Amino acid sequence: MERKFSVGIDFGTLSGRAVLVALDNGEEVASAVYEYPHGVMDEKLPSGLRLPLDFALQHPGDYLQVLERTIPEVMKLGGVKPSQIAGVGIDFTACTMLPVYADGTPLCFEEKYADRPHAYVKLWKHHAAQPQADRINALAREMGEKWIDRYGGKISSEWMFPKLLQILEEDEEIYNRADRMVEAADWIVWMLTGKETHNSCTAGYKAIWSKREGYPSKAYFKALDPRLENVIGTKISTDVIPLGSLAGTVSACAARLTGLPEGTPVAAANVDAHVAVPAVGINDEGKMLMIMGTSTCHIVMGTEEKIVPGMCGVTEDGVLPGFFGYEAGQSCVGDHFDWFVRNCVPESYAKAAREAGQHIQTYLTEKARALKPGESGLLALDWWNGNRSVLVDADLTGVMLGMTLRTKPEDIYRALIEATAYGTRMIIDTFEEYGVPVKSLYAAGGIAEKNSLMMQIYSDVTGREIRISGSPQAPALGSAIFGAYAGGYFKKLGDAIRVMGKVKEIVYRPDPENSRIYDRLYAEYKIIHDEFGRGQNDILKRLKAIHRGVHNA
Amino acid sequence: MERKFSVGIDFGTLSGRAVLVALDNGEEVASAVYEYPHGVMDEKLPSGLRLPLDFALQHPGDYLQVLERTIPEVMKLGGVKPSQIAGVGIDFTACTMLPVYADGTPLCFEEKYADRPHAYVKLWKHHAAQPQADRINALAREMGEKWIDRYGGKISSEWMFPKLLQILEEDEEIYNRADRMVEAADWIVWMLTGKETHNSCTAGYKAIWSKREGYPSKAYFKALDPRLENVIGTKISTDVIPLGSLAGTVSACAARLTGLPEGTPVAAANVDAHVAVPAVGINDEGKMLMIMGTSTCHIVMGTEEKIVPGMCGVTEDGVLPGFFGYEAGQSCVGDHFDWFVRNCVPESYAKAAREAGQHIQTYLTEKARALKPGESGLLALDWWNGNRSVLVDADLTGVMLGMTLRTKPEDIYRALIEATAYGTRMIIDTFEEYGVPVKSLYAAGGIAEKNSLMMQIYSDVTGREIRISGSPQAPALGSAIFGAYAGGYFKKLGDAIRVMGKVKEIVYRPDPENSRIYDRLYAEYKIIHDEFGRGQNDILKRLKAIHRGVHNA
Repeated sequence: MERKFSVGIDFGTLSGRAVLVALDNGEEVASAVYEYPHGVMDEKLPSGLRLPLDFALQHPGDYLQVLERTIPEVMKLGGVKPSQIAGVGIDFTACTMLPVYADGTPLCFEEKYADRPHAYVKLWKHHAAQPQADRINALAREMGEKWIDRYGGKISSEWMFPKLLQILEEDEEIYNRADRMVEAADWIVWMLTGKETHNSCTAGYKAIWSKREGYPSKAYFKALDPRLENVIGTKISTDVIPLGSLAGTVSACAARLTGLPEGTPVAAANVDAHVAVPAVGINDEGKMLMIMGTSTCHIVMGTEEKIVPGMCGVTEDGVLPGFFGYEAGQSCVGDHFDWFVRNCVPESYAKAAREAGQHIQTYLTEKARALKPGESGLLALDWWNGNRSVLVDADLTGVMLGMTLRTKPEDIYRALIEATAYGTRMIIDTFEEYGVPVKSLYAAGGIAEKNSLMMQIYSDVTGREIRISGSPQAPALGSAIFGAYAGGYFKKLGDAIRVMGKVKEIVYRPDPENSRIYDRLYAEYKIIHDEFGRGQNDILKRLKAIHRGVHNA
Repeated sequence: MERKFSVGIDFGTLSGRAVLVALDNGEEVASAVYEYPHGVMDEKLPSGLRLPLDFALQHPGDYLQVLERTIPEVMKLGGVKPSQIAGVGIDFTACTMLPVYADGTPLCFEEKYADRPHAYVKLWKHHAAQPQADRINALAREMGEKWIDRYGGKISSEWMFPKLLQILEEDEEIYNRADRMVEAADWIVWMLTGKETHNSCTAGYKAIWSKREGYPSKAYFKALDPRLENVIGTKISTDVIPLGSLAGTVSACAARLTGLPEGTPVAAANVDAHVAVPAVGINDEGKMLMIMGTSTCHIVMGTEEKIVPGMCGVTEDGVLPGFFGYEAGQSCVGDHFDWFVRNCVPESYAKAAREAGQHIQTYLTEKARALKPGESGLLALDWWNGNRSVLVDADLTGVMLGMTLRTKPEDIYRALIEATAYGTRMIIDTFEEYGVPVKSLYAAGGIAEKNSLMMQIYSDVTGREIRISGSPQAPALGSAIFGAYAGGYFKKLGDAIRVMGKVKEIVYRPDPENSRIYDRLYAEYKIIHDEFGRGQNDILKRLKAIHRGVHNA
């Protein structure tokens, strides 16, 4: 019998990556990356027009080029015939959204709108819709909207409706001309299949949709802005399909673009973090995946809907069908260490690392590894980029205690690692306190693979075993799993996960002696976390207010 | 008429420095430095014997060599005849003390004691007598001793009686064989004049003496250790002479050593920080001098004795006759910036400074100067080396708040400068709260001369004018002033101060706009200063306890 494969395509912040996976044993036989030619547009449009502060746009043409370049490449590299492709799955950053016409054409493809920022894709990290988010949240509290609880009490400025409202308020013509406001995830599936669909993951986590209650009410949207009364059903489709379902098949047009046979099955779109869950073999409740990059996203599934304060969201069928998927996040993880290396590592260390032929992060890690827990005397709050969970407050800033004249760079470096581990434990403890069990941990991403010290610290701090993704491209592998399942190769999604999902052999296990010291340090972390984060002492916000006042003067 | 001069000699931590000053106009015509051959002995004795932790000893022979080398050198450099020297004054670090025989010979000069650490000079920063200091303080509280109030409620381990008690407890033979335990300041005057005297400054600040009440009672010393019952009058002389008085004249022996004529007047000894007060022209209450080096010492005079909690001490006639002299201190000033430069400045900055031909501190200062108050968003507690005033707690450690991914090294550098300025304001505010006015500031030391940004920040933060020492060697100049007065060249000490004391032309004045922002930031500093420093949240001490536990495990 001819060997079968699926293609998973992961659309990240700067590039798209395809992976070709064998369905008999999950082997990743080929992969290809394509960097978006326009990258992230946060200073100007292609025309040169300068963008306002906090804008982050993309060009949707770049996404089509990813399909055109990477799919033929992995088939060629893997030496497989188009007929061997059983299915295709995709995942995307989210909420990454764009205004399109009824046929799916982005408004920014039109010459006349080339100079209109709101015609382009708003990337997940477009942060200019905070005033809109603030109003959405205030009105929800005022009207006693129940749905806000599912999102930890706050809708982020990064999500669908703040961005949509910003378009309406700042460029009503673009808003009016658009037939739909769609997630880029759904848009790329639309481009592959010629058929519009909307997946339950982005709808649930980013667009305030739930399987049982749908979208917020007309009354709510009308109160937000009378022009929004009918937004649901017009700009936003009510037709939401569950993850794992077949979105459609490759159209004649997409077949020409990609080299895939017309009719190849395409799975419902997915989100990059969430889709990584099956890629590490998780098919059950209580196993939390940490996708660790510049920031960390935490996904865990439960069997019941629980309201957990300060989390990003809970969505039924939002990760795997049959479970409630919970999402939380830490805003500053890899970014933290990059900041430290760029701004705080002395020349003598940089030289010593070069002489040892080591990357500076490796050099620092080895020095930090020689320290025992508690030895530095330092304690930090990991809020250099605000706090996403459980405080949901972008105005919080970093804190460090315990410095002396004997404090060394590696002491500070280790304290920053530990701070992010305490932040993770705070998320885990909060989930458990509100009835969502977290029994063990999984980690994916470059940091998880490369930094064994960090993984051991996380295990010691959280008191839990940690397994590491077996694939360096977990989201693309996850998409391939959904592609294979949607294409019908596997009868059950669980079968696809068992064959294709994978972890490394190494398991990090908590060292009881280290955990005992970290329990004491975590108790101290909680004290200042609550003091500075929960309003007891708002000094960080007052300092930020002074900072803003001076900055804007 | 033949021009007259005086010689001031400043005995520092690593070297002694003589300055020759003209008495008609205060011109410093020559100076000479001699480094102590034995330096600070904190690891081993000259014999190679290893010293216990926290010992810091010196060899008194080094001090005699300073006299032998520097006095002839300044006379030669200045082209003056010995007969033109109207007087000599000296100042010393304190409490720097040693055991001597009745004729002034140090016990360590004896071959048989060469290997006995307690026979040597205990330098001011000998920190091994903390257990003794703790017992002295606990007993004083227990017995309701009033004198403890004059020292802000605590005797430092650096002072006379903890060191004396350590000698008694750890080497009773040395204790018993010594006829006196003397300040090195008084000892060097003894060596110059052949006559034993004890000055009111070290007796008052370091040996719990007061003009009105003398030393603590026999009953107290007996309770501390029965062997100490008669310490006052035996090991410690009760014969204390006021500052500015004539201690004696150069002996025949000292004349051979120094080239000074026998009979040259020698002033009562003094302490380096305190003697700098007249050198900047201060002759009145309410003018605080900050002697800024690795740490800062603050001296201000008042007309009444006030009990100010958390200060190092108050002594009648302790700075200038007729005033109550108050002393306070910050443990970490220059050390703070050195720590930062050694541990936290990235390679890119080190390179840029080299390319610009600037010292890295200058480079950082220029970058920090470009920031406005409050612009960094940072706030620090200046406790990297504990807190001397007003909290008197060596176990406190550093704190920094407000870091973001945009925080730059110069932001942190400026925040550290500001933190030391807030610490100074805390001292000033506490003095004023308890009835000791501080109307304006003076600064001496390398930082004060070199770092105009820091002086402007201190002026903005404290809301006070700051004048800078006109001499780079204020303590030696101050000693020369006392030498000239004790020698009878000036009828009044005030006349000597007017002619010889000096400040630079520049006056730093508070910028009202900056002061307004610093008032807000200082209010925040006070909140965390009190929270972390006054027992409301002892997290810093708990972290230190964890650190110690791990370190000593």
